[in-house]
Amino acid sequence: MNSAPIITLTTDFGTADTYVAAMKGVILSHCPNCIIIDITHEINPQDVTGATLALSGVYTYYPSGTIHVAVVDPGVGSTRRPLLVTTEKYAFIGPDNSIFSFALAGRDLQGVFMLENRDYMLHDQSATFHGRDIFAPAAAHLAGGARPETFGRPVQDYRVNEIPRPVMTGDTHIRGEVIHIDRFGNLITNINRQFLEKLSPGGPLVLTCGNASISLFVHTYAEAPEGTPCLLFGSNGQLEIAVKNSNAQKILKASRGDTLHIKKAE
Amino acid sequence: MNSAPIITLTTDFGTADTYVAAMKGVILSHCPNCIIIDITHEINPQDVTGATLALSGVYTYYPSGTIHVAVVDPGVGSTRRPLLVTTEKYAFIGPDNSIFSFALAGRDLQGVFMLENRDYMLHDQSATFHGRDIFAPAAAHLAGGARPETFGRPVQDYRVNEIPRPVMTGDTHIRGEVIHIDRFGNLITNINRQFLEKLSPGGPLVLTCGNASISLFVHTYAEAPEGTPCLLFGSNGQLEIAVKNSNAQKILKASRGDTLHIKKAE
Amino acid sequence: MNSAPIITLTTDFGTADTYVAAMKGVILSHCPNCIIIDITHEINPQDVTGATLALSGVYTYYPSGTIHVAVVDPGVGSTRRPLLVTTEKYAFIGPDNSIFSFALAGRDLQGVFMLENRDYMLHDQSATFHGRDIFAPAAAHLAGGARPETFGRPVQDYRVNEIPRPVMTGDTHIRGEVIHIDRFGNLITNINRQFLEKLSPGGPLVLTCGNASISLFVHTYAEAPEGTPCLLFGSNGQLEIAVKNSNAQKILKASRGDTLHIKKAE
Repeated sequence: MNSAPIITLTTDFGTADTYVAAMKGVILSHCPNCIIIDITHEINPQDVTGATLALSGVYTYYPSGTIHVAVVDPGVGSTRRPLLVTTEKYAFIGPDNSIFSFALAGRDLQGVFMLENRDYMLHDQSATFHGRDIFAPAAAHLAGGARPETFGRPVQDYRVNEIPRPVMTGDTHIRGEVIHIDRFGNLITNINRQFLEKLSPGGPLVLTCGNASISLFVHTYAEAPEGTPCLLFGSNGQLEIAVKNSNAQKILKASRGDTLHIKKAE
Repeated sequence: MNSAPIITLTTDFGTADTYVAAMKGVILSHCPNCIIIDITHEINPQDVTGATLALSGVYTYYPSGTIHVAVVDPGVGSTRRPLLVTTEKYAFIGPDNSIFSFALAGRDLQGVFMLENRDYMLHDQSATFHGRDIFAPAAAHLAGGARPETFGRPVQDYRVNEIPRPVMTGDTHIRGEVIHIDRFGNLITNINRQFLEKLSPGGPLVLTCGNASISLFVHTYAEAPEGTPCLLFGSNGQLEIAVKNSNAQKILKASRGDTLHIKKAE
Repeated sequence: MNSAPIITLTTDFGTADTYVAAMKGVILSHCPNCIIIDITHEINPQDVTGATLALSGVYTYYPSGTIHVAVVDPGVGSTRRPLLVTTEKYAFIGPDNSIFSFALAGRDLQGVFMLENRDYMLHDQSATFHGRDIFAPAAAHLAGGARPETFGRPVQDYRVNEIPRPVMTGDTHIRGEVIHIDRFGNLITNINRQFLEKLSPGGPLVLTCGNASISLFVHTYAEAPEGTPCLLFGSNGQLEIAVKNSNAQKILKASRGDTLHIKKAE
């Protein structure tokens, strides 16, 4: 027996309203044996980049064949197209607003199709809730075995937005930014290990963030002294600023988007 | 092979406490192959009407045979009865406090039974948590094939509370109210498309809400100009007040229960 | 056909970040037919005792064979060991930081093993996210049939922290504390029915909490008058302070850890 198909959901709908529950009802109506997993529904309203960052950091942990649905969709009802994106291992379903940039710009991209086959949509569609009316039934039909090319015509001019990348000046200075702040107040940056190693090796580094200068590198939160901001590579390989058993965001008064500078210590 | 039975949960328990997890454990103990779906657990504490509105807008998206459990239960431990309500397609399990009014007042109502068969309850019952001790095991036994009439005697005098309905004065004036405010700050009203069309047709309308007058009708959020309150029919067919890429609740300082007036523009 | 294995998750990760979703992806990758249930992810950051109290009150409602994973792990990356704990009916997977004290100190304890078999871990491990890299795959392999003793060597010197217990002075005075405050503002104490009955019987009791004296005992919330703090035994058999249709925490300005005194009324 094959495993049950897995559909994940990433939205800005929250869990107090019933938008997510409507999507799940539609999915189960068309694919009763699906396993539905919530990635998160707490993306900030209309924060497409936030959804991209959230999903891009986690989708690879799912089994091959998983269908990832993402609905952060300020353009719902406009001419923005609904898309099905397939890669070697996964499928992605959501709006054509760059939310799947990581997949669309990746080497394992296979196909991009417009969702226009009305057999795979709810009959009574609203103009404002494509998550329920178009994306959920599309995911369920795909999980049920519908072939990607039956959903609609191929799309070439899909939208891709690069995640803000760090910048290297000479080989002595990196400018990056805070791209996410987690529940623990850890500041996750857009600088990963490979990028940081481009700085000419040898000698300690110092990161400045607002008024703070941080030069303490640790391998784990546990290794750090209490109350002192420190740097470490987090679980996705990105450089983080953390304060052990405390909250770096509050201590450093940091926000997403804050600029960081890394230089060699003098 | 039949599909696994689906049980949905709607409560005011939140997700920080473990009340919901206790219910799920009880359900899985009695019906191991159930699919359990959270509608929402963020109903305001003791807000029976809020639960009714939430569930009534979403339950029809679930497959026939789904069992909907709702526990917003300020009268737990009093003489209020625990109920099983069956309609053509669904079953509803929860307290007799009008929470299932939409089903009890509907044309497809089939049966209403008191939950009094102790074989379908936990043996050690508390006086304060019927969600875990009565409703969850009842749902699991029903999912496992127990027939509705075996749960207890039929109930005739169940409680029904009508959702506040809009009022039409002559054919020129509608008085309605805000019945829900979603995460995006959209104000969902109790006025639906059919009701609004009763206003004598032709000519623009104006809605007043507090100090604001709104006459801009759009089909989708995307169509609206930024920052301007506008009217549209939302995904459940109800008239909504929205502000594109912003928050109508904050801009209009609106609350649930606020009165609305719709008249023809002069 | 056997039932699908059940894995529950208790963490302080919240649901806005994708840490929980990463764990679920790993579990489903290794055990595709698992049922994954969220106990709660809203344990306060690093509150090991809070996680212990949450899980200890609910795990017994799950079917025999359930695997309970708990990750509140301020010591991640230090020398604290990852553990598998087995009892007659359940397995527990998480850090050796006393989070499973209720099971480790229980009479039905069977085995305690260190998680050190690398075949049951992700290949690329981070130093900061053992939930994803060690605990999730361990749970999935156990669910898939791996025997407990294959995970690693037995551990004897595991950490146990007793939940704060109430104290009896003579047979006339109990000193206890508030160990949890739920969403409704009910104050759950560490005093259960058996303990309270040790007070010499007969005659009314009075509980003091801060400036408040409460002597009204009820069986259910419904029985209480509105607005008056009262005492009752909650759904887990613990003495609670509640205010019907209101919030005892706000009215009494109480906090977790507040001391309570119970004496005979004079």
